[in-house]
Amino acid sequence: MNVTLLAGGVGGARLAHGLDLALGAAPANASTQTSSPAQALTVIVNVGDDTELHGLAISPDIDTVLYTLAELNDEDRGWGLRGESYATLSALKDLGEDTWFTLGDRDLATHIVRTARLRRGDPLSAVTAHLAASMGVRPRVLPATDDHLATLVDTPSGRLGFQEYFVGRQHADAVLGLHFEGADAARPAPGVLDALAAELVVLAPSNPFLSIEPLLAVPGVRQALTDAPGRRVAVSPIVGGQAIKGPAAQILESLGHEVSALGVARIYAGLVDVMVIDERDANLAGAVADLGLTVHVTDTIMGGPPGRERLARELLALA
Amino acid sequence: MNVTLLAGGVGGARLAHGLDLALGAAPANASTQTSSPAQALTVIVNVGDDTELHGLAISPDIDTVLYTLAELNDEDRGWGLRGESYATLSALKDLGEDTWFTLGDRDLATHIVRTARLRRGDPLSAVTAHLAASMGVRPRVLPATDDHLATLVDTPSGRLGFQEYFVGRQHADAVLGLHFEGADAARPAPGVLDALAAELVVLAPSNPFLSIEPLLAVPGVRQALTDAPGRRVAVSPIVGGQAIKGPAAQILESLGHEVSALGVARIYAGLVDVMVIDERDANLAGAVADLGLTVHVTDTIMGGPPGRERLARELLALA
Repeated sequence: MNVTLLAGGVGGARLAHGLDLALGAAPANASTQTSSPAQALTVIVNVGDDTELHGLAISPDIDTVLYTLAELNDEDRGWGLRGESYATLSALKDLGEDTWFTLGDRDLATHIVRTARLRRGDPLSAVTAHLAASMGVRPRVLPATDDHLATLVDTPSGRLGFQEYFVGRQHADAVLGLHFEGADAARPAPGVLDALAAELVVLAPSNPFLSIEPLLAVPGVRQALTDAPGRRVAVSPIVGGQAIKGPAAQILESLGHEVSALGVARIYAGLVDVMVIDERDANLAGAVADLGLTVHVTDTIMGGPPGRERLARELLALA
Repeated sequence: MNVTLLAGGVGGARLAHGLDLALGAAPANASTQTSSPAQALTVIVNVGDDTELHGLAISPDIDTVLYTLAELNDEDRGWGLRGESYATLSALKDLGEDTWFTLGDRDLATHIVRTARLRRGDPLSAVTAHLAASMGVRPRVLPATDDHLATLVDTPSGRLGFQEYFVGRQHADAVLGLHFEGADAARPAPGVLDALAAELVVLAPSNPFLSIEPLLAVPGVRQALTDAPGRRVAVSPIVGGQAIKGPAAQILESLGHEVSALGVARIYAGLVDVMVIDERDANLAGAVADLGLTVHVTDTIMGGPPGRERLARELLALA
């Protein structure tokens, strides 16, 4: 089965890992599986968080997806690599550089390679494919676009760059609106639109505004998802009225949405066929169904690899 | 007293350190010293060894000078920083990068800062001044030029880039000739020609062909040294027929020069007034004097800071 996942950072990376485990592990009827399970999963990743620091091109969501798929990620922290050291960052600080954004020594190697290849003219999709291959990642990982697309956050303190809002000010500001700089002129990266024709398209339990919206803002992507021939499934990132991670709950509220799986379902209505909500939100199933969506109620908290694979298998069964 | 040193890597860096100690330390008659001893020493540094690795701009000689003046250098090894770690290099190797050139984690911070500032359009001289200030370096450190100048080495195996010859193949190839790519179009960095009007100009005990020649190859520099109004002194890098460090002896031989302090003196005749040779080469003093040079015989092996300062004080006395 061909599966495409639309993903932001941690939640998307964990579900990508689960899908890779579910698709890549030899099933009971191994003879009938596709000849190349590696090709079965495509992960389309948000680039609105991308930034440049110390002259290096940083793609936080792509790296979280790559590191998690390569099983090199720091599970406890949620981002970055396991067993990191910070000698270069310490030296950058000693040289007077602004080091509010934490960059580990091993993580820096990724940014150095990405930057060198972008500067010589390789598109981000080719650089990402190279990094994925270098790390032994099986699924195809695609940036939403090779073009410039930057999420800007309107707050009471003015318009902020994404990382300034998210890391620098620790997403403490109320979000009054979002602006995806460059989106109008961006083109989907090669393979993105084709991937949306997969038998199963999953919207990860990522932040609807900060992770999924910038993907849909690339001209052609929202329409391709609307017209997608396969089964389209979204997993709610809101469980029991709270975000599993990050500022999704605050942003839903400040933008006038209900802070619940139902609020998320209203945003995704028309874009997906099935809404997956947590068993703690079973009471919302009827209201979600009233939106014309099929509802699947389950334990959506993935945790480690076994939980990811379990949720992934349930999603595969929905197609 | 204003002093200018022409320097390559380790030997130049050690003498720069000695001169900084000798000029910077408050002398007995403190009231008569220049108001800003920091301005008294200018070090003009070879950039022919500069290269780009992993998309980062590397200036080995400038960094050796900066690290030594900041007393951050690895004295045992001769290059790089003390107490280095190599996590980023290890990760670069894991990503399939070619890692024959050793880059420490803290050293990488220097290259990252340099590269970011060069890419935004700062000239190398401004970037070097920023790095020097960040490290607390007192002397003015100037690249010979802000323009592209790359030392290429002709060998029986063909023309090699400098770092391929020096690090990659560990200077094992016979040197048949040198080519300073870009030299004809290069301009001296701001301050270089003025600095050659100092009361004392010293050619460091650096490699005459790999360190000093590429400085003199920048149009205007050789002439300014020839016409320099101050005392011009060269320190022989050859002691007892051997180089203190590196391939100077082999290169003198393969290019048809005598491998001795006299051979070096013949190369520098006309460019300097005084030749400083080691006491082990005292028997050559007459032949050096016959070239029209004043000869100063002393212990030229600097070793640690006390030896550097001692040699530097002798040089200051020559002016």
